[in-house]
Amino acid sequence: MLMKKLIVLLSALPVLGLAQTNDDSIFIKKISDDVLQNGRAYVLLHDLTKSIGGRLGGSPEFAKAIQWGKKTMGTLGADKVYLQPCMVPRWVRNGKTDKVAVVSVNNKPLFKPLDALALGNSLGTPTEKGITAEVFAINDFEQLEKYKDHLKGKIVFYNYHFNPTNISTFTSYADAVRYRGGGASRAAKYGAVGMIVRSMSESTDNNPHTGDMEYNDSFPKIPAMAIGLQDADKLWRLCQLSTSVMLNITTHGKKLPDATAANVIAEIKGSEFADEIITVGGHLDSWDVNEGATDDGAGVVHTMEVLRVFKALGYQPKRTIRFVLFADEEKSGNGAQKYADEAKAKGEKHIFGFESDAGGFTPRGFSFKVPPAAWSKLNEWKVLFEPYGGSRFVVGGGGADTEPLAEAFNTPVAELNPDSQRYFDIHHSRADVFENVNRRELLLGAVNIAALIYLVDKYGM
Amino acid sequence: MLMKKLIVLLSALPVLGLAQTNDDSIFIKKISDDVLQNGRAYVLLHDLTKSIGGRLGGSPEFAKAIQWGKKTMGTLGADKVYLQPCMVPRWVRNGKTDKVAVVSVNNKPLFKPLDALALGNSLGTPTEKGITAEVFAINDFEQLEKYKDHLKGKIVFYNYHFNPTNISTFTSYADAVRYRGGGASRAAKYGAVGMIVRSMSESTDNNPHTGDMEYNDSFPKIPAMAIGLQDADKLWRLCQLSTSVMLNITTHGKKLPDATAANVIAEIKGSEFADEIITVGGHLDSWDVNEGATDDGAGVVHTMEVLRVFKALGYQPKRTIRFVLFADEEKSGNGAQKYADEAKAKGEKHIFGFESDAGGFTPRGFSFKVPPAAWSKLNEWKVLFEPYGGSRFVVGGGGADTEPLAEAFNTPVAELNPDSQRYFDIHHSRADVFENVNRRELLLGAVNIAALIYLVDKYGM
Repeated sequence: MLMKKLIVLLSALPVLGLAQTNDDSIFIKKISDDVLQNGRAYVLLHDLTKSIGGRLGGSPEFAKAIQWGKKTMGTLGADKVYLQPCMVPRWVRNGKTDKVAVVSVNNKPLFKPLDALALGNSLGTPTEKGITAEVFAINDFEQLEKYKDHLKGKIVFYNYHFNPTNISTFTSYADAVRYRGGGASRAAKYGAVGMIVRSMSESTDNNPHTGDMEYNDSFPKIPAMAIGLQDADKLWRLCQLSTSVMLNITTHGKKLPDATAANVIAEIKGSEFADEIITVGGHLDSWDVNEGATDDGAGVVHTMEVLRVFKALGYQPKRTIRFVLFADEEKSGNGAQKYADEAKAKGEKHIFGFESDAGGFTPRGFSFKVPPAAWSKLNEWKVLFEPYGGSRFVVGGGGADTEPLAEAFNTPVAELNPDSQRYFDIHHSRADVFENVNRRELLLGAVNIAALIYLVDKYGM
Repeated sequence: MLMKKLIVLLSALPVLGLAQTNDDSIFIKKISDDVLQNGRAYVLLHDLTKSIGGRLGGSPEFAKAIQWGKKTMGTLGADKVYLQPCMVPRWVRNGKTDKVAVVSVNNKPLFKPLDALALGNSLGTPTEKGITAEVFAINDFEQLEKYKDHLKGKIVFYNYHFNPTNISTFTSYADAVRYRGGGASRAAKYGAVGMIVRSMSESTDNNPHTGDMEYNDSFPKIPAMAIGLQDADKLWRLCQLSTSVMLNITTHGKKLPDATAANVIAEIKGSEFADEIITVGGHLDSWDVNEGATDDGAGVVHTMEVLRVFKALGYQPKRTIRFVLFADEEKSGNGAQKYADEAKAKGEKHIFGFESDAGGFTPRGFSFKVPPAAWSKLNEWKVLFEPYGGSRFVVGGGGADTEPLAEAFNTPVAELNPDSQRYFDIHHSRADVFENVNRRELLLGAVNIAALIYLVDKYGM
């Protein structure tokens, strides 16, 4: 029946025709066999995560990662590998441990530490003694507005939950991340002196999840921290059962002057349409509290694996393919912006931009932002991805690092959609380590990406 | 675009019609929301794996699991819960540690232990000193036949690899498992005194994977063991580089008299067609060396979750639904056989049999063994599963525990196909523990199963 179905689908292809599609399915099977047998993505991920580890944009570790990326891509046989320098903002957690603790309940001393991490960009508490203040626990911004007259001098605790009913966890993240990003300044507007947020996750552990936050310059810049889900539940219950819960928060984050960083770019020159550029990439930076294996080590080694397998199979692309490790996606997107700005300045022709930044889990499909005409082509290609799991093609974005390309040139962009169930269990937390990436799942992502890049190279977009 | 696609697909449904499908999609969304918010599967799996753990069919632990299953299903609101006794074979690893060690290379003493487990049903070595003999390393049965005159007095080592190029790991398992199941007797036929096999896995760790083996009574019953993949690679290399490698293998397995066990059955009586029975189940037994969380704790709690959510939503089935925890799938299939035999003896009418026995990973779809007429119905239902990930419907079997039903009544059967990439990393090894099951992935499996059972109940099969 599967075979029958495949034949029906193949014979229904109006443009490519059966013969052509068969050539493509044969080449994609070669890609798959080679990646699953000889793939280097997993070993390279081990190297990146264990020899460098966390690599926040602009940090000394990130500088090491740039050199590692350049050296590694150099061994994979690109025509050239080069750095594209750019400036990135710097923020440091500043060594010392981030602390949140309950210190009294209903005016009776009680010491209960909670597992916490400062959010990225958060400024530290003014002194080593931290800030001690009453906590005001709310669910959401609606309650913030409702209780705005009660927040002066308080530490606001947003206990906003990931919505468990969304099948894609990215939908729940997009909803909840507003509290991480803007919650501090919205609370500071009403006199709050600190902010803690329930981590953007639905995990079963208690790890806090850091991530980017931004201050609104109109209001005082108060410290902003995340706590783990189990501690968030406990703190919430404590607040419901008590008239007053005092917290001490201590954190040390600070901004440093901008630093020089770089995108790492490897290139294979096209044989027919060298001026048409296809970009495939991931971001090289990660948060500082983990190994950045899933976010976005996976995208980095996916990118390298596509380069490796094309060279291993002797595939000579018609168009120029750039394999790009972008700088500082997490804090600024400056690497991606620099890439698009320079492309524009040079008058380059960018026909497709692709990013892998949703993890190394089993691929389910791709999200595309392309003109309507491209959709009929994509729908013809879908059947080629069925054996490899990546045939769910949806309309969406192309990832943060391809967005500047899309804006600058209207370049069609896409990103890999792996299975999303485990992504936010580990995202931006200590759990984002090599051991939480599965070898075959990671390699299958590279198979599907390589197949897509091959088709775009062969037929254009 | 997704919305557009959904509308196109919905309007193309020839039989159910749009209105009816909308009712169904609304009810399935209710199932999904309730399971993802209030699901008990994960907590019940914790209970089963941590309070009982490994539960080989016929063992005292399995007897505990039967009581646990009966008690737990009793709390979930079935009309009745009962045990269906059956006899199952018994095999015990017999307490002491299974050992495989290199003891000399080229006649020079060298002690190197390998991580090993006896295969299920393997008899122990005759004495506590084990068997010491030269190892004869081969890749496959072809080499066994080629070198059959060299095997007398040797320990045959099958280093047959999982084929990494299959996208479904179950395909590679079906290919490789022949060496585990029949490799000992085929080697004993040519005078081998022991057999070790490369574990049926492609994992990155060194855990040995046990599992069922069978002796051919025509040949001596030699001990049969599995070793981990890293040790298999090392031993293979050692054999290639040496003229003689001596191994000592020590193991203690033995058969005991058959024991009484039972299937655990919960039932909701149908309101319209009470005589038409739908079975949904998993198997309650596991191997002895782990917690049996994935194999098949996941299927057990999937089954319980379907019962729970039907009761929670006040769903009154038209047909009678039986929730069955089968006894001794791993060693004999006697529980499933008993279930079918008794159904036949009572002249029951079984319209559908379903099993979950492929893990608690994100659902990808279902495998069906149904008459051709049922396929058109299934194709109409597929769109309803798209939001929940289970829309890949393929022709296949219905799992080992529904097979006797299919044989006895020609009952249409099906099984859940979760993502298969991680299954054989942990299957039958120490790694099959609760911690390797993801909460949301597990719950999503139950969502898809409940949706299918709901549709079969409503429309028949």
